[in-house]
Amino acid sequence: MRAALAAAADAAAAGEVPVGAVVVLDGRIIATAANAPRALHDPTAHAEMLAIRAAAAAIGSDRLSDCDVWVTLEPCAMCAGAIAHARIARLYYGASDPKGGAVEYGPRLFSQPTIHHRPEVFPGIGDGEASALLRDFFSRLR
Amino acid sequence: MRAALAAAADAAAAGEVPVGAVVVLDGRIIATAANAPRALHDPTAHAEMLAIRAAAAAIGSDRLSDCDVWVTLEPCAMCAGAIAHARIARLYYGASDPKGGAVEYGPRLFSQPTIHHRPEVFPGIGDGEASALLRDFFSRLR
Repeated sequence: MRAALAAAADAAAAGEVPVGAVVVLDGRIIATAANAPRALHDPTAHAEMLAIRAAAAAIGSDRLSDCDVWVTLEPCAMCAGAIAHARIARLYYGASDPKGGAVEYGPRLFSQPTIHHRPEVFPGIGDGEASALLRDFFSRLR
Repeated sequence: MRAALAAAADAAAAGEVPVGAVVVLDGRIIATAANAPRALHDPTAHAEMLAIRAAAAAIGSDRLSDCDVWVTLEPCAMCAGAIAHARIARLYYGASDPKGGAVEYGPRLFSQPTIHHRPEVFPGIGDGEASALLRDFFSRLR
């Protein structure tokens, strides 16, 4: 989660909503990404999406069955859907997101009967620091 | 929807689940994509995602507020989430998807109180041909 938080801080420095993510395989980080939809002109460029795409490219498969995702914010529906498609084994996340989250809030995607894969979910990892990054970012915008 | 169906047929020919999508701006197609997660080693490479990313790159913005998406299959949660993030104006789709869909089935994402953008939705456009492509593809797999 240290590496994901560092990526989130990079996102903030770049003027993006501060969210960072890493993909881990066998205890080793194989992809790290910062949220970057503005810079990349890509509405899908959330940190989890970029990290999952980089990890899949690195291992040469669209399935990441033995991989874990660590992300500083509760994933939205798009990212939770991608986590399911990628067959991620474990999801660790920091801050909960009542407004945009889709794991414990909103559609609670992994509790839907039609979801085809459910990772193990571990919320609240490093959430203090993750929330502080987001709070600082949005307070500077006002 | 003609162009989206042609892209879906291309996906089938490439051994991918036959789904195709286009993004339209001012009555003109600005992006076309076929489903390609296997070929691209990318679990996020659904037709809608690729078309939205290409359209956003083409217009140089992560917001596609005046654009419409035409896709041959009801979007999943990942794609419906991306459609919301991209602020797509209208969504036209072909076949309904009781197993993986997230618009009229499953989490019904655009009916969730926390969704931050709802496109106008027009289902069942060219659904006969879209369904036939999918049925033929899966019957050949058996």
